[in-house]
Amino acid sequence: ADVANGSRYGLIGQMLAKPGERDALAAILLEGTAAMPGCLSYVVALDTKNPDALWITEVWDSKDSHAASLKLPAVQAAIAKARSIITGFGHRFETTPLGGAGLAR
Amino acid sequence: ADVANGSRYGLIGQMLAKPGERDALAAILLEGTAAMPGCLSYVVALDTKNPDALWITEVWDSKDSHAASLKLPAVQAAIAKARSIITGFGHRFETTPLGGAGLAR
Repeated sequence: ADVANGSRYGLIGQMLAKPGERDALAAILLEGTAAMPGCLSYVVALDTKNPDALWITEVWDSKDSHAASLKLPAVQAAIAKARSIITGFGHRFETTPLGGAGLAR
Repeated sequence: ADVANGSRYGLIGQMLAKPGERDALAAILLEGTAAMPGCLSYVVALDTKNPDALWITEVWDSKDSHAASLKLPAVQAAIAKARSIITGFGHRFETTPLGGAGLAR
């Protein structure tokens, strides 16, 4: 088991798209988040109950890496592109990831 | 962007441990879930608000792979070991993962 020293930072959150724009929003997010330093996992998924909602689950090697990612050009571009089709956010949970399969070490 | 054909299956859920047993539960889960066919991601994380709660986020290449994993010896052993220190479950969301960083293809 890979019980980390508690330094990892995780986010689980819902993002809400304008009706009919969910796939476009997902594509923007996937494009902008492909190469972020310190990102161990970033998954974009469809909510199966709300047709306008995406679930985004993230694992970072630290909270600082997450904060720094928001200044990356690709992320800034994605935020700018996505702004017009995001209507809001839903659930949002902060976590401390311990480990697991599929995490880049 | 890796917008899948909608066949992937994802789960986001809280698992509640007996007070003081959360780390033990996490270790059991991490041990039992290290090698599951079709599992693209399985992350065990501490809830930062509830000291007894874990967040488990999973991505599978299909719902069938997830169902089959429950019969794996290692998973059955983990369930048996964990049963005595699980008090219940919290939030549980099913998703359709589209893609992202850190997903085994």
